[in-house]
Amino acid sequence: MVIPGGIDVNTCLMKPFLGIKPVDDFLQGTKAALAGGTTMIIDHVTPQPGDSLMEVFEHWQEAADKKACCDYSLHVDIPEWNETVKHELELLVEEKGINSFQVYMAYKDLYQMSDSQLYKAFSFLKHLGAVVLVHAENGDLIAQEQRKILGMGITGPEGHPLSRPEELEAEAAFRAITLSNRVNCPVYITKVMSKSAADTITQARRKGSLVFGEPISASLAADGSQYWSKNWAKAAAYVTSPPLSPDPTTPDHLHTLLACGDLQVVGSAHCAYSTSQKAIGKDDFTLIPEGTNGVEERMSIVWDKSVAMGKMDENQFVAVTSTNAAKIFNLYPRKGRIAVGSDADIVIWDPDSVKTISARLQQSASEYNIFEGLECCGGPALVLSQGRVVYEDGNLQAHPGTGRFIPRKPFPDFAYQRVKFRNQGKQGVTRGMYDGPVHDVACTPKYITPSPSARTSPTSNQPPPIRNLHQSNFSLSGAQADDNVPRRSGHRIVAPPGGRSNITSLG
Amino acid sequence: MVIPGGIDVNTCLMKPFLGIKPVDDFLQGTKAALAGGTTMIIDHVTPQPGDSLMEVFEHWQEAADKKACCDYSLHVDIPEWNETVKHELELLVEEKGINSFQVYMAYKDLYQMSDSQLYKAFSFLKHLGAVVLVHAENGDLIAQEQRKILGMGITGPEGHPLSRPEELEAEAAFRAITLSNRVNCPVYITKVMSKSAADTITQARRKGSLVFGEPISASLAADGSQYWSKNWAKAAAYVTSPPLSPDPTTPDHLHTLLACGDLQVVGSAHCAYSTSQKAIGKDDFTLIPEGTNGVEERMSIVWDKSVAMGKMDENQFVAVTSTNAAKIFNLYPRKGRIAVGSDADIVIWDPDSVKTISARLQQSASEYNIFEGLECCGGPALVLSQGRVVYEDGNLQAHPGTGRFIPRKPFPDFAYQRVKFRNQGKQGVTRGMYDGPVHDVACTPKYITPSPSARTSPTSNQPPPIRNLHQSNFSLSGAQADDNVPRRSGHRIVAPPGGRSNITSLG
Amino acid sequence: MVIPGGIDVNTCLMKPFLGIKPVDDFLQGTKAALAGGTTMIIDHVTPQPGDSLMEVFEHWQEAADKKACCDYSLHVDIPEWNETVKHELELLVEEKGINSFQVYMAYKDLYQMSDSQLYKAFSFLKHLGAVVLVHAENGDLIAQEQRKILGMGITGPEGHPLSRPEELEAEAAFRAITLSNRVNCPVYITKVMSKSAADTITQARRKGSLVFGEPISASLAADGSQYWSKNWAKAAAYVTSPPLSPDPTTPDHLHTLLACGDLQVVGSAHCAYSTSQKAIGKDDFTLIPEGTNGVEERMSIVWDKSVAMGKMDENQFVAVTSTNAAKIFNLYPRKGRIAVGSDADIVIWDPDSVKTISARLQQSASEYNIFEGLECCGGPALVLSQGRVVYEDGNLQAHPGTGRFIPRKPFPDFAYQRVKFRNQGKQGVTRGMYDGPVHDVACTPKYITPSPSARTSPTSNQPPPIRNLHQSNFSLSGAQADDNVPRRSGHRIVAPPGGRSNITSLG
Amino acid sequence: MVIPGGIDVNTCLMKPFLGIKPVDDFLQGTKAALAGGTTMIIDHVTPQPGDSLMEVFEHWQEAADKKACCDYSLHVDIPEWNETVKHELELLVEEKGINSFQVYMAYKDLYQMSDSQLYKAFSFLKHLGAVVLVHAENGDLIAQEQRKILGMGITGPEGHPLSRPEELEAEAAFRAITLSNRVNCPVYITKVMSKSAADTITQARRKGSLVFGEPISASLAADGSQYWSKNWAKAAAYVTSPPLSPDPTTPDHLHTLLACGDLQVVGSAHCAYSTSQKAIGKDDFTLIPEGTNGVEERMSIVWDKSVAMGKMDENQFVAVTSTNAAKIFNLYPRKGRIAVGSDADIVIWDPDSVKTISARLQQSASEYNIFEGLECCGGPALVLSQGRVVYEDGNLQAHPGTGRFIPRKPFPDFAYQRVKFRNQGKQGVTRGMYDGPVHDVACTPKYITPSPSARTSPTSNQPPPIRNLHQSNFSLSGAQADDNVPRRSGHRIVAPPGGRSNITSLG
Repeated sequence: MVIPGGIDVNTCLMKPFLGIKPVDDFLQGTKAALAGGTTMIIDHVTPQPGDSLMEVFEHWQEAADKKACCDYSLHVDIPEWNETVKHELELLVEEKGINSFQVYMAYKDLYQMSDSQLYKAFSFLKHLGAVVLVHAENGDLIAQEQRKILGMGITGPEGHPLSRPEELEAEAAFRAITLSNRVNCPVYITKVMSKSAADTITQARRKGSLVFGEPISASLAADGSQYWSKNWAKAAAYVTSPPLSPDPTTPDHLHTLLACGDLQVVGSAHCAYSTSQKAIGKDDFTLIPEGTNGVEERMSIVWDKSVAMGKMDENQFVAVTSTNAAKIFNLYPRKGRIAVGSDADIVIWDPDSVKTISARLQQSASEYNIFEGLECCGGPALVLSQGRVVYEDGNLQAHPGTGRFIPRKPFPDFAYQRVKFRNQGKQGVTRGMYDGPVHDVACTPKYITPSPSARTSPTSNQPPPIRNLHQSNFSLSGAQADDNVPRRSGHRIVAPPGGRSNITSLG
Repeated sequence: MVIPGGIDVNTCLMKPFLGIKPVDDFLQGTKAALAGGTTMIIDHVTPQPGDSLMEVFEHWQEAADKKACCDYSLHVDIPEWNETVKHELELLVEEKGINSFQVYMAYKDLYQMSDSQLYKAFSFLKHLGAVVLVHAENGDLIAQEQRKILGMGITGPEGHPLSRPEELEAEAAFRAITLSNRVNCPVYITKVMSKSAADTITQARRKGSLVFGEPISASLAADGSQYWSKNWAKAAAYVTSPPLSPDPTTPDHLHTLLACGDLQVVGSAHCAYSTSQKAIGKDDFTLIPEGTNGVEERMSIVWDKSVAMGKMDENQFVAVTSTNAAKIFNLYPRKGRIAVGSDADIVIWDPDSVKTISARLQQSASEYNIFEGLECCGGPALVLSQGRVVYEDGNLQAHPGTGRFIPRKPFPDFAYQRVKFRNQGKQGVTRGMYDGPVHDVACTPKYITPSPSARTSPTSNQPPPIRNLHQSNFSLSGAQADDNVPRRSGHRIVAPPGGRSNITSLG
Repeated sequence: MVIPGGIDVNTCLMKPFLGIKPVDDFLQGTKAALAGGTTMIIDHVTPQPGDSLMEVFEHWQEAADKKACCDYSLHVDIPEWNETVKHELELLVEEKGINSFQVYMAYKDLYQMSDSQLYKAFSFLKHLGAVVLVHAENGDLIAQEQRKILGMGITGPEGHPLSRPEELEAEAAFRAITLSNRVNCPVYITKVMSKSAADTITQARRKGSLVFGEPISASLAADGSQYWSKNWAKAAAYVTSPPLSPDPTTPDHLHTLLACGDLQVVGSAHCAYSTSQKAIGKDDFTLIPEGTNGVEERMSIVWDKSVAMGKMDENQFVAVTSTNAAKIFNLYPRKGRIAVGSDADIVIWDPDSVKTISARLQQSASEYNIFEGLECCGGPALVLSQGRVVYEDGNLQAHPGTGRFIPRKPFPDFAYQRVKFRNQGKQGVTRGMYDGPVHDVACTPKYITPSPSARTSPTSNQPPPIRNLHQSNFSLSGAQADDNVPRRSGHRIVAPPGGRSNITSLG
Repeated sequence: MVIPGGIDVNTCLMKPFLGIKPVDDFLQGTKAALAGGTTMIIDHVTPQPGDSLMEVFEHWQEAADKKACCDYSLHVDIPEWNETVKHELELLVEEKGINSFQVYMAYKDLYQMSDSQLYKAFSFLKHLGAVVLVHAENGDLIAQEQRKILGMGITGPEGHPLSRPEELEAEAAFRAITLSNRVNCPVYITKVMSKSAADTITQARRKGSLVFGEPISASLAADGSQYWSKNWAKAAAYVTSPPLSPDPTTPDHLHTLLACGDLQVVGSAHCAYSTSQKAIGKDDFTLIPEGTNGVEERMSIVWDKSVAMGKMDENQFVAVTSTNAAKIFNLYPRKGRIAVGSDADIVIWDPDSVKTISARLQQSASEYNIFEGLECCGGPALVLSQGRVVYEDGNLQAHPGTGRFIPRKPFPDFAYQRVKFRNQGKQGVTRGMYDGPVHDVACTPKYITPSPSARTSPTSNQPPPIRNLHQSNFSLSGAQADDNVPRRSGHRIVAPPGGRSNITSLG
């Protein structure tokens, strides 16, 4: 069975934590990718507050150009929000071919943005035509819970999921989607780890929201009860954020949603730390470096648990492991399909191969594999990267530095086409001036934030609206961005409720 | 048909806005209440940031004692969070008989609290045994949207709903419930105005959350498209927050949820401003004083649209207009039922009376009635307050100052009984010490907020847990506050996953 | 803690199967009831097709009058549908004080009724003011699946759940509710065993359906995987229909729905057969007598798994174990509450007692207890039946024949009050006659079932409708029985869509 | 914008009703198709009970070969279930290239099958690799309601929706899906007309069911309140089954579900009768020939209401109007895509064209157009059929008889790939024989239908199961056909619950 090479759009091969770097770098990480049938990755550039995004990006690119064994691109994470950042984002889009940026709703006092900042960031990124990636967890509540848990004397890895219950993930996803609906901007939730978050995304899509969800290898196959392992090192190996859910029905549910299209992309969030690195947090779970493996296992897990279970057909397998990612991040049709003109990143997939996952056999340099012992059906028999055989019958022939940086243009159709149709203005009502008595106000409205310019601009004598109201309907089920003038459902109206008027479109 | 007198737990008869007061004070407001069959109100005390809660409370009480024609109690709204406020809250509970306090998720730069502050407030109020009332709207997003709308030149009342779409209400309700689940604290969402918010509450209850929802007269019967009225004064009369939904199916949906118990209490949020007061915002919708009428119409609206439609039976009518409120706010059985020993607040309800609501006929002093022209079936024929006839056949015989302040004890059973069963501690895992190599950390973890004390307290050598694990089950469908140790569903376990251990209960 | 005695509205103490009777008769069964805090039962009279309902009823009553140790009433199951049955139903309602009758959607070629028969039965029972009990499983599909499973050589008790997957229960519940909506008749689903069926009921209530759901002791606490036990006798002990779900999260979900009012009544479906009786089906699972124990354990199970888990408060405990049943079946306020004038069926409940359920300790005469080993918190300390102490500190002092038959009037308010408001007629449109050309029809419409009388009755010259259209609204969210004329939502209309007309109400 | 020609998989161009035929035959109907951008249709062959399926099929094919102006294929409807029908179905699949057959849950005493018959039909059709089309409405209830409505004197077209409320459609869809889950067979619901039915399908897919849903032109854009039109002829023009919903929010909801993939295919159910034909039912709505137009308007409606509203992107537009249909019915890649080797059925789509639909301008021969006055944005500029220009700038150059019959192979991957993975056997438990006492059975189990052969076949001494249990997981969220042995969720097991055993796979 011939399929396009997999695309893993979530790896962290250089993400620093307290100055340390993951043990799987671009060499080790891309080797693992290829061994699993993945021929392209998009890695997260993770600057710290105060860093120049551009410099960090270039540092990443330089490292990748030397070491990567397969094609790659880069997301840039946004560690803070200010004018400098905005300027650098523009440059990254225009000059560097980056069209996806991650914002954080967690990591209070570090990367976390407030709702106001997120609103501004979403607005700005939409303007650039970028895809907004969101780390969705409520950082305020995590900080409170961490304090409480530590205060109770719980310092081991079990404190990690105890302080980050899945509701906090669902809450943040709900909020991120609400924000994106306001801004009319596509949003991509990275690392969907729980049923609650996945259901939140599903329901929002059912109401018309432009949201994508990315479960990862770990949430699709690993066991969240391992945080309670008596073996500290093993328990610590599972620490990632959002955490794995202890609810054992989670993976099955996420596979079902992938199969019916409610979740779109499978990532790995591969970020491998050694046990001695994890041990930085041996006395305080909040100091354990976060990350799990998954880049090598990603495709086999989806095959084994979705296709071989009869949940998903082969087309959908290709979609969630490769094509959808290519479309969302504007790599399609160069990547994500097999066709004349596309890159020759091709995999021969063997549906019947069976392999038991083990740290002993993995490409990754870490001591633990969170899927240890999982018997997986389905795997790559042959992998072509850029037309060259790089993996065959278990033998890897990867060459550092052969991976190319793939630039990506903004405004990917898959995410942005619907945006343009929704980009309709709001309308005010043109009324005669209110000329009745006005109550005197003694005190100054110090807390309220009026917009003086708005109040002085007359709204009458404006040209009629350009927008053809005949193209618009009140949406009861959905939240279309332009549904601002309520209309009797099922009836197109020219006049707003309340009487005939000259509508002034100011949108 | 004899029923207990109605209880309206949401009135604002003295709420100041830019120094002005509503036109319906305790005299006018309680007269309207009685005329509608309501024999007790709970009014909101609304201090400003910097005010002494106690002083403002006493000011309210003094005014009410002079003017109120029916029994009353008071909620106190919390305008900010600090040590002084905490101290005053304690006094209010212990000395003044107040057990319900409102926090705000909206009104940025004024009353709005951050998630961290809300977490602290919820924790503190739970400790006091109080019911947390929440004004649920996302203030950050409202502020952004207001700026955008005003920037577009939309200054009329239609800007109010345009800048406060119902998603912002649902988002905040979702967040408030997430918070309350963390703290294991009952939460009461005031003014449920939209289907989205109501559905959020319903779903959370289906998962075990301790949340109550209060639709109001306006959301149960008024027409949200009136914000687009060409008549500015009329449009402004509908301004309240959260706004009425322009979705015309909203009232019917809220009645259905009331009927099947997903929403529990009908309030009025009565807060009447005159047109000249509303006109303060004639050039800027953000300056329009917020509030609508409803205290007089409340019970008839529920009868007409729920009972007379065959949605609700008479028992449930009494529950949502009187008994549930009495139970939640610890007035029961003194109020909310007819029995020996209960107060003689009794209404003879005439199911067949028909009345057309009109500003001309209302007790309220305001010029507009947002239900103008609504023909309502069902109304009070006779109202007894404290055993005296105060309303009969349309004639009101109310006496200012006869209303008594009704103090309320904390820890109402209806809200708090389940809390105590859920108040179980989290458990850590007792492991041998990790004694492997630890990676050196070059830089200081400046952003992370460890809890030094926690790290030094040894978790071993602790007594065995008091909690009997046999009484506990992993809840897949719900979010029980004590579901912190994951267990194989359906199996009670003594040891946590990962091996047998000495569990140390530290909760 | 003093509570009204429990009411178990689902027992089968004389239900014959192939001529054999359960080992727990009215003596044994009511003793078990009292030992568990239940002071009244409603037993199912189960005639066979061809039997006289009245005779079988009298046979039951005679037996119960001799043996019952607590008050009782009787449901009568309807084994077939014909004119004789209709006549007997009338007599049972009018002369015998029976207001609840069970119909079967399962047991093909035995009790099962077709949809057409159910429609007629529902219509007739509604006319009598009775509560329709429904055994909800799709009998056609069960018969097919049984044949398939037996054909595969599976003959053991595991064949029971394999041939009755929970979807078949949910499907029938959905259909029963659809039927009851058509007829505008309250319907009560007995033995809610699965999450799917419970969710179906919950969703229907959310849309306004008049449906009640009854989970039972078994579905609230027993383990459906026991059908796969290697011990045949043990596996067979769990055989009941609908079967226990093998999904281990079922009990927790049902408790949550009970707690928030989506399910209303807890029954036991107590029907105890000995192992030698069960062994009739040792070579064919379809011949295993169906029934499990539960009348003694019912109340403790709800306390232990709902109240002691913090899911449910004590008021709701009383509601689901006693009061709701009394209201639905018109025993209230004689039963189901503690008040002057009510029967002195009273229980002192000890929330802290702990008991491990075991067949060795039970009142029931059967060898197995499906809750064997379950440690239950909460149980009766003292039980008064008709004012006499019948159980105290584990000692039972029950007296056969002291239990009285409690007749019940039709049209219970709790079920029927809303029906009357919904009992509105459908309206036709009065049009001018169509006078255009009519195509010749060559062949006779042999398959179509016109109603000649209807076509000849002129619809004009009728009196105006009695129904006040002003009281009615189109329900988008719900399926109100009278929503037959579509109207623009949110707008009351006098004329139907399509133009002004003289409406002729014929309903 | 170049797109593959549309495929309309639901037309009825020769469907007889009381001996009359629709006014749009294969000539008129395919001309209308081409004018709307549709280059292939699949028409329903509709035999009557007693007819030879093969003969009627050949009659259809003959007519189409003479008249069709575009390629076509045929579904065959199954009017009854017996051995002759089964034999003819085999021939149609093997010799005629038909892979889709429609069964009816409505039309009592005519086409309607019982659940038992449906079970058998589904099983048989699955065995043939066919796609089961289902007309989903509860015929028993419709017959009862029709009788009731006619009995009330309502004889006009409004009686049609009054007797077929959308719940009956949802109920049947739920039942059809339950059936298909049992049989592990893909099922395709034709003519999804209501939100309730669409939501039923959506929820089932979310649980893993293999179900497809087909809304049609009418349900996506027409106004169900027209049944109440004062103009009889106009009202009658809307009569189709299931009826249009009077709920005005229906079209918007169906478009949203199409956009997110919960519904897959847009049909038209084009079946045009003249007013004089409709007038056969002028005195009895049950005699009005059922059918509406839509083949010409289908694609423009989807564009206008989904794409131009920002609900759907262009790829999804092509999917729901062409590609998905081609895949489900095994026409892909010959049809439904533009590629070397595919048929040259190509459309140049003009997104900006605006057209007002009117009967005056339509290709159809009927007097009414149910979309009269609808202004549609988007339409074909140029249509190529088999490489020839057949429509350009409003001019149609269609040639009768140029359309070819396209045979279709069974077992389409899109529908059947997942089936094969789910085709796993059920397992019994091997136990020692029960050797305890067995109760004597006095009477014969006359009603029960045992399978003697099954009971005598020994289940031991069988070969070990072929199925690798390691590939299977208990699905909590879904109803996988092989989830028959319950397992602890999240744990793969080799032994069933209850202890280690030799499992004998007999599936």
